[in-house]
Amino acid sequence: MTSEARYDIVAIGNAIVDVIAQADDVFLEEEQLNKGAMTLIDADRAKQLYNDMGTAREVSGGSAANTLAGASTLGRQCALIAQVADDQLGEVFSHDIRATGIDFDVPPIGKQPPTGRCLILVTPDAQRTMNTFLGASQFLSPASVDTALIASGAILYLEGYLWDAAEPKAAMAQAIDIAHENGRKVAFTLSDGFCVERHRDDFIALIQDGKLDILFANEAEIKSLCETEDFEAAVEQTAKQIETLIVTRSEKGAIAVHQGESCAVDAEPVEKVIDTTGAGDLFAAGFLSGYIEQRPIPDCLTIGAIAAAEVISHYGARPEADLTALVKQRLG
Amino acid sequence: MTSEARYDIVAIGNAIVDVIAQADDVFLEEEQLNKGAMTLIDADRAKQLYNDMGTAREVSGGSAANTLAGASTLGRQCALIAQVADDQLGEVFSHDIRATGIDFDVPPIGKQPPTGRCLILVTPDAQRTMNTFLGASQFLSPASVDTALIASGAILYLEGYLWDAAEPKAAMAQAIDIAHENGRKVAFTLSDGFCVERHRDDFIALIQDGKLDILFANEAEIKSLCETEDFEAAVEQTAKQIETLIVTRSEKGAIAVHQGESCAVDAEPVEKVIDTTGAGDLFAAGFLSGYIEQRPIPDCLTIGAIAAAEVISHYGARPEADLTALVKQRLG
Repeated sequence: MTSEARYDIVAIGNAIVDVIAQADDVFLEEEQLNKGAMTLIDADRAKQLYNDMGTAREVSGGSAANTLAGASTLGRQCALIAQVADDQLGEVFSHDIRATGIDFDVPPIGKQPPTGRCLILVTPDAQRTMNTFLGASQFLSPASVDTALIASGAILYLEGYLWDAAEPKAAMAQAIDIAHENGRKVAFTLSDGFCVERHRDDFIALIQDGKLDILFANEAEIKSLCETEDFEAAVEQTAKQIETLIVTRSEKGAIAVHQGESCAVDAEPVEKVIDTTGAGDLFAAGFLSGYIEQRPIPDCLTIGAIAAAEVISHYGARPEADLTALVKQRLG
Repeated sequence: MTSEARYDIVAIGNAIVDVIAQADDVFLEEEQLNKGAMTLIDADRAKQLYNDMGTAREVSGGSAANTLAGASTLGRQCALIAQVADDQLGEVFSHDIRATGIDFDVPPIGKQPPTGRCLILVTPDAQRTMNTFLGASQFLSPASVDTALIASGAILYLEGYLWDAAEPKAAMAQAIDIAHENGRKVAFTLSDGFCVERHRDDFIALIQDGKLDILFANEAEIKSLCETEDFEAAVEQTAKQIETLIVTRSEKGAIAVHQGESCAVDAEPVEKVIDTTGAGDLFAAGFLSGYIEQRPIPDCLTIGAIAAAEVISHYGARPEADLTALVKQRLG
């Protein structure tokens, strides 16, 4: 029997502070950066790249954390499980999450490794190139997965990025089982094409074993998952195995296949795209927010598109505008 | 005899990271904040206020540091003397200053007190209310004033804010003498009306003793300095005692009185004012940049107005656009 959920969404994700600088394509080439992708970097490379890059702004990030920030702004009750260190960036991350109204109670680990950060280079085409030093994030322990907390969330939301480290991976596997034992939905984002390449077998196993109820992907990720260049085929193949599949397609909008039924929305208009960081995260925030409200799936997609459009209109991956007002204006 | 200057501007200022959040007037009232002013706060109050305020972005700040960032963007050679701690915010401040092309060689002090920060609340009217925890900044020592460095800068630039702590005050007094012994100009900003209230006698003594060649003020500051509500009288009285006086007047533009000759410029148009933090700092950057180039004083004012207009069109007190291009477009 499923008891009433205290939280709409409980998420497990990386605790990351984004360090955002403008850069041109020449800089990306010189630094041999993988444009548009998320690349994991170690402490030495993080130091060197930071040294080489321009003046930056620091804004809290982390994929699942961004999604919760969006969902919270849309009125959802959320809790986050993530690992910071006992340092100033950890304080920044914790402050910003809590200031958004999200419950976050995982105590910081020691001073080392420091809180994770993502060095983001935004090119004049608004594309973001991410270089992540996971730091403390990779030590998120299964012991931090509070059974009662997972059981009390209508949706458990997980980011694929977290699969890159052993302990958080174990934490997520454990959380999935707790969620399902308590009749909760499990939502998962494939995060990044290269992330899918690194963990394809694991992700396929999660899907085939019925561990995931809702899956978020973009075009590159779903094609990588199915090892095909045929987008339609990749969607068809994956949709058969999952209750709700959402695929975002940048300026082409997004599609969903829910219990075998397909629908699509266009992208929302944006006056000027400044920084695409967080577009996928905020799409998930909007979709899940509508899903929790039991709105029709096309409306869930539209809310996702509204939230994504807001976040790409400024630097940083957390919403700055009143998303609830934007949704009300659009959908009533 | 004055040797050729290696630097255009050498500045002594607070090393501050700005922590910028949106807030409404109700929040300012609840927290009993002094709207539009800079208030010094201690560690406990900084913790409590940070806890209460919303999601923030972190951007390097510090008044003189902002001015140098602007001047550097305008092609000037600059060096900064300021004190950070050995912590992550200190790394952020140091990185951003150096990434702007400014020489900054003062080694961090220990971990405590931490690097200074300014909790800035930006209200919907774009007004900023600043709450500064000086931290390591108040321990900038006279020992950090490198005589050769001061001697090698055409202009020594000092912020009035630094007068709030004993050691930096002594450092500035020492630097002024070194600059003048080497035939350099000394520029000073009064920083803030309340800062002038705290140190009026000292500031008046600096002026009367001929320690300052160039003085920057806004309307509130110069009126506070002269303890009068009569703006014209305050300008007249002060201009008599200083070679170059510049007074910024927000949307009313700015005036200068240089060797007894007055001139004025209008404010540059701004599409939408977002955050007025740094307007005065960037005005000084633009003015001094033109001054170094030996442009006519009205053009120096115009460059100041262009730099100020850029910085108030976005969050944060450092320029984001190519100021040199903006000046070229406007003045050729």
